Amino acid sequence: MSTPGYGQVFAALRDGCPEQWQAYTRHAFVEGLGDGSLPRASFMHYLIQDYVFLVHFSRAWSLGVIKAETREEMQVCAATVNALINHEMALHVRTCAGLGIDEAALFATKEEVANLAYTRYVMDAGLQGDFIDLIAVLAPCCFGYGEIGLRLAGVAVADTPYADWIVTYAGDEYQDVMASVGEMFDAAVFRRLGPEFRTSPRWQRLQGRFTTATELEVGFWDMGLDGR
Amino acid sequence: MSTPGYGQVFAALRDGCPEQWQAYTRHAFVEGLGDGSLPRASFMHYLIQDYVFLVHFSRAWSLGVIKAETREEMQVCAATVNALINHEMALHVRTCAGLGIDEAALFATKEEVANLAYTRYVMDAGLQGDFIDLIAVLAPCCFGYGEIGLRLAGVAVADTPYADWIVTYAGDEYQDVMASVGEMFDAAVFRRLGPEFRTSPRWQRLQGRFTTATELEVGFWDMGLDGR
Amino acid sequence: MSTPGYGQVFAALRDGCPEQWQAYTRHAFVEGLGDGSLPRASFMHYLIQDYVFLVHFSRAWSLGVIKAETREEMQVCAATVNALINHEMALHVRTCAGLGIDEAALFATKEEVANLAYTRYVMDAGLQGDFIDLIAVLAPCCFGYGEIGLRLAGVAVADTPYADWIVTYAGDEYQDVMASVGEMFDAAVFRRLGPEFRTSPRWQRLQGRFTTATELEVGFWDMGLDGR
Amino acid sequence: MSTPGYGQVFAALRDGCPEQWQAYTRHAFVEGLGDGSLPRASFMHYLIQDYVFLVHFSRAWSLGVIKAETREEMQVCAATVNALINHEMALHVRTCAGLGIDEAALFATKEEVANLAYTRYVMDAGLQGDFIDLIAVLAPCCFGYGEIGLRLAGVAVADTPYADWIVTYAGDEYQDVMASVGEMFDAAVFRRLGPEFRTSPRWQRLQGRFTTATELEVGFWDMGLDGR
Repeated sequence: MSTPGYGQVFAALRDGCPEQWQAYTRHAFVEGLGDGSLPRASFMHYLIQDYVFLVHFSRAWSLGVIKAETREEMQVCAATVNALINHEMALHVRTCAGLGIDEAALFATKEEVANLAYTRYVMDAGLQGDFIDLIAVLAPCCFGYGEIGLRLAGVAVADTPYADWIVTYAGDEYQDVMASVGEMFDAAVFRRLGPEFRTSPRWQRLQGRFTTATELEVGFWDMGLDGR
Repeated sequence: MSTPGYGQVFAALRDGCPEQWQAYTRHAFVEGLGDGSLPRASFMHYLIQDYVFLVHFSRAWSLGVIKAETREEMQVCAATVNALINHEMALHVRTCAGLGIDEAALFATKEEVANLAYTRYVMDAGLQGDFIDLIAVLAPCCFGYGEIGLRLAGVAVADTPYADWIVTYAGDEYQDVMASVGEMFDAAVFRRLGPEFRTSPRWQRLQGRFTTATELEVGFWDMGLDGR
Repeated sequence: MSTPGYGQVFAALRDGCPEQWQAYTRHAFVEGLGDGSLPRASFMHYLIQDYVFLVHFSRAWSLGVIKAETREEMQVCAATVNALINHEMALHVRTCAGLGIDEAALFATKEEVANLAYTRYVMDAGLQGDFIDLIAVLAPCCFGYGEIGLRLAGVAVADTPYADWIVTYAGDEYQDVMASVGEMFDAAVFRRLGPEFRTSPRWQRLQGRFTTATELEVGFWDMGLDGR
Repeated sequence: MSTPGYGQVFAALRDGCPEQWQAYTRHAFVEGLGDGSLPRASFMHYLIQDYVFLVHFSRAWSLGVIKAETREEMQVCAATVNALINHEMALHVRTCAGLGIDEAALFATKEEVANLAYTRYVMDAGLQGDFIDLIAVLAPCCFGYGEIGLRLAGVAVADTPYADWIVTYAGDEYQDVMASVGEMFDAAVFRRLGPEFRTSPRWQRLQGRFTTATELEVGFWDMGLDGR
């Protein structure tokens, strides 16, 4: 499988933290989704926390609309907020409903620290920095799930009970949104740092933010496994 | 024509500044839209500035998603951002395109002070206060245009060149969004101040914010007329 | 020793989560400060993380200046920022300097998740809510350290190596700032919720925020102990 | 008189809008301060509005503490908040007290649109961009008053009734703070854009922000004169 294309800025950031990226995208939780060995309790624990994660992740993408400086940046951010609230969260609501957990209960879920830490870090990165500081910390979740979904779609066992999850992130709808986010991220970085963005004095800090967010993703999977 | 219903909180705030509300909703600019006497140059000047206004107004509604505390509040704010960016601004783009002004030019328009003052006041009210502080300053534009549109739809001369503008705000699509915003605003205020919201220690300040935003609307129409 | 007086709003919030408050203010880490049994490595691990905590805590108090609505609120917040940056952090710098760790190294310390989670939660509570939502999450650290400092000053063994820490928080300078913060918090809550603040529809949510911040304090001490 | 030195970034921005800078720093209001011809009513109108301006300007500098990424940036911003609230505003309070206007009345002053537009534009520039986007819009007021004060100190008539104003801004205390702000601004821009900052893709937008803020300064003086 070739690496999916979410743009060159993302590729550079990912290549800047290979160990963390591996720990995130090849986490035992992820492998368990693909081979079906992930305990159901872990998955449900993760899914419920992930619903609350998406609530705050939507807030962070809304901060993107506020920080955008071009029409394209605004439109992509607004569309992503919409996709999150009206599409991606539907998987969670649907799956949980099948287990008797309604959306009001999901919304009121007490966040675990690993969850809270991640989304609030993202919000604050956006408050502290500019548009690309924000997108750099939104990127690991967005593109990482895209990569994981695509990879698992190719290697998952036929009867994994987590096919619905895999299809959500491997599917065209999610992949198309991510392709447009990747394109927008490239344009946003070129616009602010120029085409030689890797040599910008800001690059190291952007990499630091991306790496931290990736580490927080690892913590999120760990939290899922702990829910066994 | 009966007063349209956008909820009891809005009604109370509007009744708290009758002179300013009259100055806004019965402004010479508005009357000129209805009887067709508004100079075309004034209208175009207004419309171009209003496009930029909507850019920042969308940013302010996005701040609403960030400040929301319930699922309903989030959903209404996200839907409004979407309606603004993908529907209301289309009127401006369409009308301006007919005159050879493309959207990139609209987006790059230099804001007049009356315009800038209004939207930045709204953003800052949201940053300083909580969700209802923000909605209180978003309300005059939202509901005022709804009231103006409905009234003009009933009294406008048949051949006003501004029928397209009137239909946009009198139409079901805009009115339905405003009805849901009004319902959400009521619920948001009850949730924070209780059903006796008028006796809350915060009421006077909320009224002050609403009144200031209404005065800034008057300044916006003045700016439109000055563009003759 | 009588409970120190930081105002009635704080007292009500503290009484609303007795178990969490106990877990925080009587934590093994705290007891170890008083009886001198805390391993030096734990203390240093804590102190270095706490320096970074204070960097972000200062940012959160600066958000208080932005969200303040009265002159008194602004002045107390500005004075607290100043006290944090120019006084409280000096303890950390002084102690670490004695161990060959300079302030630039402190500033660049990698935050642990328990640390990052806490300060970013505080920042976001301030962004999402109003002034009292912010003060409610700043309160556990401010007043809790005041309580702990005063209590330990009365019960600590004479030769605890942590006397400097205890004196910092038990001392008049810190206590006086906290007394003024407590007074300001009472006034801020009365101003927004009225004197019967406990019956406000917002009370439960404010309590929830305070409780979460208190739990994050427990996590911070846990992190300190883990650093052994 | 030689141009005072507030750093090379400021010098570049000022040179990027010579007409607006001239309109601001050589405004009729300014000349009237120097030759004593400014009507007292204009001055008082200005001074009262300027008090409210400083309230919000302090909020904007507090946003600087939030957006800072180095210890030096934090310290300069925190010190400036302190200088504004505890020093510069004292001139206003003292002068107004002599006329029977107390500080509570000052704080409650209704802002004129030219005033509100300026400070809220500054706040929002900080929310939308990063640290240097914020400093770029704080700069015209800070450094412009420094330049005006120094120039007037050299050319003002001996008996101008506005000597107290001139001394405030020409004095060492104000000039020293501005020198440190200028140094910090240079370092902040080098850190993010590199030493060849003028060729950064962001430069034009930073210049645009600085120019807009300078234009809003002109509007502020106009407002003062209108108060005759």
